[in-house]
Amino acid sequence: MDKSGEIKIPKGFLFATAEAAIKKPGRRDMALIVSEKEAAMAGVFTTNRVKAAPVRMDMRQIRKGKGLAIVMNSGNANACTGAQGMEDAVEMGDLTASLLGISPRSVYVCSTGVIGTPLPMQRIRSAMPGLCASLGKGTIADVAAAIMTTDTFPKMAARTLRIGGKTCIISGVCKGAGMIAPRMATMLCSIITDVFIGSAPLRVALREAVGRTFNRITVDGDMSTNDTVLIMANGMAGNREIVAGTPEHRVFATALTGVAGDLSRLVVRDGEGATKVVEVIVRRAKSDREARRAARAVADSLLVKTAMYGNDANWGRIMAALGYSGIALDEPKVDIYLNGLAVVKGGLGKGNDTAANERLRAREVSIEIDLGIGTGSDAVMTCDLTEEYVKINAEYRT
Amino acid sequence: MDKSGEIKIPKGFLFATAEAAIKKPGRRDMALIVSEKEAAMAGVFTTNRVKAAPVRMDMRQIRKGKGLAIVMNSGNANACTGAQGMEDAVEMGDLTASLLGISPRSVYVCSTGVIGTPLPMQRIRSAMPGLCASLGKGTIADVAAAIMTTDTFPKMAARTLRIGGKTCIISGVCKGAGMIAPRMATMLCSIITDVFIGSAPLRVALREAVGRTFNRITVDGDMSTNDTVLIMANGMAGNREIVAGTPEHRVFATALTGVAGDLSRLVVRDGEGATKVVEVIVRRAKSDREARRAARAVADSLLVKTAMYGNDANWGRIMAALGYSGIALDEPKVDIYLNGLAVVKGGLGKGNDTAANERLRAREVSIEIDLGIGTGSDAVMTCDLTEEYVKINAEYRT
Repeated sequence: MDKSGEIKIPKGFLFATAEAAIKKPGRRDMALIVSEKEAAMAGVFTTNRVKAAPVRMDMRQIRKGKGLAIVMNSGNANACTGAQGMEDAVEMGDLTASLLGISPRSVYVCSTGVIGTPLPMQRIRSAMPGLCASLGKGTIADVAAAIMTTDTFPKMAARTLRIGGKTCIISGVCKGAGMIAPRMATMLCSIITDVFIGSAPLRVALREAVGRTFNRITVDGDMSTNDTVLIMANGMAGNREIVAGTPEHRVFATALTGVAGDLSRLVVRDGEGATKVVEVIVRRAKSDREARRAARAVADSLLVKTAMYGNDANWGRIMAALGYSGIALDEPKVDIYLNGLAVVKGGLGKGNDTAANERLRAREVSIEIDLGIGTGSDAVMTCDLTEEYVKINAEYRT
Repeated sequence: MDKSGEIKIPKGFLFATAEAAIKKPGRRDMALIVSEKEAAMAGVFTTNRVKAAPVRMDMRQIRKGKGLAIVMNSGNANACTGAQGMEDAVEMGDLTASLLGISPRSVYVCSTGVIGTPLPMQRIRSAMPGLCASLGKGTIADVAAAIMTTDTFPKMAARTLRIGGKTCIISGVCKGAGMIAPRMATMLCSIITDVFIGSAPLRVALREAVGRTFNRITVDGDMSTNDTVLIMANGMAGNREIVAGTPEHRVFATALTGVAGDLSRLVVRDGEGATKVVEVIVRRAKSDREARRAARAVADSLLVKTAMYGNDANWGRIMAALGYSGIALDEPKVDIYLNGLAVVKGGLGKGNDTAANERLRAREVSIEIDLGIGTGSDAVMTCDLTEEYVKINAEYRT
C-alpha cells in the first residue's frame, strides 16, 4: 500500500467522488463508498458530549448493524448546527439513498471540517447526482483524498487474510491530522471488507482494533466532535460465516487491528506541523491503567513535545510529566531511554545529553520509561509540536 | 507598583543579589530576602510527585512555621538530582545561615531553571559570601530580576492595608512564564509582610489566596517540580496579633489575595510567547467544580489557544473542549460570549464571526460560557499559544 492508491480492494465495493465546493472550490470534497450487497456494519464514535449531527444519526442507524453506503464530505463538520444540522445530515443520506435506489436506513453520513457553520446544502444537492452517477468510476485513493482537511497526504491501508481457505481483504481510508486524542483519535475512518461475518462479532473486532490503535494516539489532546470509524463487511469473499470466539474471529480481529494500526500511524505521521513520530512506552508501572495514564501525560506535555522538536534530550520534562500524571512513582526507580539510549537510571541523569540529542535527530523517536514498581505497561503514539502546528491552527479558517 | 521596582516594602526586610553564573555568566542569578526579626512563615508547594530537593527541604522546614531568610537561585532547578541534590540544597541553606550568623533551620531555599543537572556548587559557594555581605544593598526589584528564567520582565506586587489602626504592607515577587498549570501555578513566589500574625492563620490566608489566584492560571498545562509560594510575616508593623476568624484576618486574607492575584496575572501576561491574556469564565454549570473543569479544558485546549492567537472566533473549538471536558452539558442551552459579544446562543452560532474576530484583536480577551443548567461558576486565566512558545521551548537548553 502506498500513496498512489495501489492498495488491494475487497470484492464488491464501488467508489465515487465529486466537487461540491463545500469550503471552497477546486477540489473533490465529497466521497461515496457503496457495497454491492448489503453489508454487516459496526461503528465506533466520539465520546465527546458535543456530537456532530451525522454522528448522532449514524449512532442511531448502526444499531441494526446493516448498511449499503457511506457518504462523506470534508470542509464542514456539520457540528454545533442544531436541528438544522440534523435535517441536513438526514437529507444528505436520503438524497444518496434515492439516487442509488436503496433504503435511506442503509446510508451512513460522515462529515469533517469547520464546526458551527451550517452545511451549504444547495451546493451539496447540486453535487449529489453527479456523485452517485459516477459510482464505480472512482478509486479508494480518490475517496481518501476527498476526505482530507488539513491532512497533507491521503491515508490508506489494507491486509489480505485467509479465512477457511478463502482469500479475504480488509481495506481502510481515514483522515485526521489535528484534534486527535485518545478515545477516538481519527475524525473519519471507513473500513471495508469482503469477509462474511455478523454484525455482533464485527463490532467486537472493531472495538478491539480501535482500542489498540486509534485510542492510543494523540496529536494535540483535543477530541473531535465528529470522530467516526465505520466498518462494512459484505461477505462476498465466500468464506463460511465467522462466529465469535473462534480462531477465525481472532485472525480477522488481528488483521483488522493491523489495518487500523497502519492508519493511526499515518495520522500521527501527518500530525499538524509534525516533523517526527514519538512513541511513548511505559513499563513496570503499578498497573496497565497507570502505565497508560503516564504515557498519555508524557505524550500530551507541550514541553516534552517541543523538546522532541528541538532534538533536546530534556528528560527533566519527562520526569515532571510523570510526576503530575497522578500515578504511583518512586523517583529513584525510574529509568528513561531515548531511542534506546539510557538517559536516566535510578532517577538520575546519565550526563550524556549530547549523545542523546543526536539520537533524537530521527523521524521516529521512542521514549521508553521503566517505572520499576510493577508489571503494568502501555504505549501511546504522538508527534512533536512545532511552529507550523501553531501557524496551521491560528489560520485555519482565514 | 511598576516594573522599575517602585513598590512599597514592609518594615524590616533586607535584600541582596549576586552573580554565580549558574547557567551562564552575565547576570545576577542568586537572591536573598532576610527579615530583621524572626517571621511567622507559611508555604504552598507543587503537588507534582517529582519534587525538587529544595521543595522537599522547605516542606519539612515549614512545619515549625518560622524563619528568617529565603535564598533563591535561577538557572538550575535542582530537581531530579537525587541524594546529591538534597545535599546541595542543604548546603546552600547552611552556607547562608553561617554567613548570616543565624540558625540553618531559619533558611528556606528555592531553585528554578533546568531540571536534572546538579547545581554547580563550586560557583554557588564562591558567590555566597558576596551575596550575604551585600545584604541591604539590593532592592526587591533586584530580587525579582534575579529569579527570572524565560520571564521577559520582573514580577512584583504590593498592597497597603490598615490593621487595628496600623499601616501594614504586603509585597511579593514571583517568576514563571512556562510550565504553569493549576494546583501551583508559579515556579517561585516570595511574599513578605510586616503584619503580626501567627503561622496557623497565616497558612489559612495563604492557602485561600493561592487557591483563588495561582491555582486558577494555566499557560501550558505542565506542572513544575519546583512550584513554591512562601510568605514571611515579621510583625514589625506593630499591629495587635491577627487571630483566625476575626475581621482583621479577613482584611489580611483579602489583601494577600490581591497581591497573589496581581502576581499571577503578571505570570499569564508573560506566558512564554504569549501575545494576549485570555480569561475563561464559566457560569451556570451544574456545580462550581464542573465550572472549573470546563474552564480548565477550554483554557488548556491547544486549538482554542491557537485560535485566540489568530484572532479567530472559532467557537466550535470551545464547544468541542466543553464536550470532552466530561461535564454535564446540554448543547441547546450553551451561550458563548467573546469579549462581551454573543457568538453562540442556544448552542448555535450567531453568524457574526467577522465582528467577533475584530473583538479578539485585543491584548485581553474574555471567553464567557453560560451553560444554562445550574448555579456553578468559576474562571481560569490563560494566554494564547504562538510560534514563539514553540521556539522558546524547543531551544530552551541550547
